[in-house]
Amino acid sequence: MQPNDQMMEWVGRIAGTLTTVAFLPQVVRVVRTRHTRDLSLVTFVLFCVGVALWLWYGLWLGSRPIVVANGATLVLALIILVCKLRFG
Amino acid sequence: MQPNDQMMEWVGRIAGTLTTVAFLPQVVRVVRTRHTRDLSLVTFVLFCVGVALWLWYGLWLGSRPIVVANGATLVLALIILVCKLRFG
Repeated sequence: MQPNDQMMEWVGRIAGTLTTVAFLPQVVRVVRTRHTRDLSLVTFVLFCVGVALWLWYGLWLGSRPIVVANGATLVLALIILVCKLRFG
Repeated sequence: MQPNDQMMEWVGRIAGTLTTVAFLPQVVRVVRTRHTRDLSLVTFVLFCVGVALWLWYGLWLGSRPIVVANGATLVLALIILVCKLRFG
């Protein structure tokens, strides 16, 4: 593996971590404030279905990074979706 | 390619489409209402950086699906971020 390949592996790892961890502050915000009016219900429904399909795809591929990232993202996105359904 | 492989290719395609298209209703909502109070600023900053890194990773890999999906998601997420910065 060349140095450039190693750097790009890290770019991929950091990308996957960020796009998952990003949803944690949104979860904290909706759970604390119980305000979800400005969130789009359709966005979180489509996003949860999409992430669940990524998880299925990752399980089929046997790709641990895809499974871990999308498993964690699905949990966070589902919490936001449930809050949106409860708080309107 | 076996039938199961073809089906799983489609699962991957639909997953990528959904996790990108999902952000469109959120863009429409924030542009129309100009209300972004319930959105987490940190979430959209981290998400934009993460998606930009995915785009870079996809360009390096030469993976058209990663580039197209993350390019489109980045545009949508940046619009939401700019609205959040403007409308608070």
